Amino acid sequence: MADCIFCKIGKREIQSMVVHDDPEILAFRDINPQAPVHILIIPKKHYESANELETADTGLLGRMVLVAKHIARQEKIAARGYRLVMNCGEDGGQSVAHIHLHLLGGRSMSWPPG
Amino acid sequence: MADCIFCKIGKREIQSMVVHDDPEILAFRDINPQAPVHILIIPKKHYESANELETADTGLLGRMVLVAKHIARQEKIAARGYRLVMNCGEDGGQSVAHIHLHLLGGRSMSWPPG
Repeated sequence: MADCIFCKIGKREIQSMVVHDDPEILAFRDINPQAPVHILIIPKKHYESANELETADTGLLGRMVLVAKHIARQEKIAARGYRLVMNCGEDGGQSVAHIHLHLLGGRSMSWPPG
Repeated sequence: MADCIFCKIGKREIQSMVVHDDPEILAFRDINPQAPVHILIIPKKHYESANELETADTGLLGRMVLVAKHIARQEKIAARGYRLVMNCGEDGGQSVAHIHLHLLGGRSMSWPPG
């Protein structure tokens, strides 16, 4: 997707504060953090939202969660805990039309989740 | 886990408002809903939290997200959107020590997510 900002971040064409980079997945700090640790985990391949996911994508999705878990350990928030959030569409509050998983921690997250 | 309430729900030993049941995954309505649609997706196998997940679990994790996507369609919230949330540990607000993915929709979800 030529105009997708997260595609460009995934290709390192736009700079970001990268915390993880592998052939499939990039993770970087949210520029508008909502917690002391707030990182976005994205697939480098473009998917507009969770609604686009198919059975073939289960491995990728699972790896995104595992990357989040590994980053939580790197950031030293694994023991105290963290919240993973994926927004889909307007009601979900999705702000960029490229799937991203939020990892939030470093503070006590309240309920409800938005 | 003999004393885990979600293991018991997964085995249908404790009644719940089930919306999806397959050999690996059960989904049921949250008894304390935070949105018009609020469903929990759990693996039948016991995992305490996301911190316990290993590479072998990527398929299961991905399938949990796909089940959420399918339920969103069933519940007719897919087009307007929804939020997926997984809490890990105390800071994350995890209330039951058995992995569960929250699917919330039917209203506009606000930011930050807790």
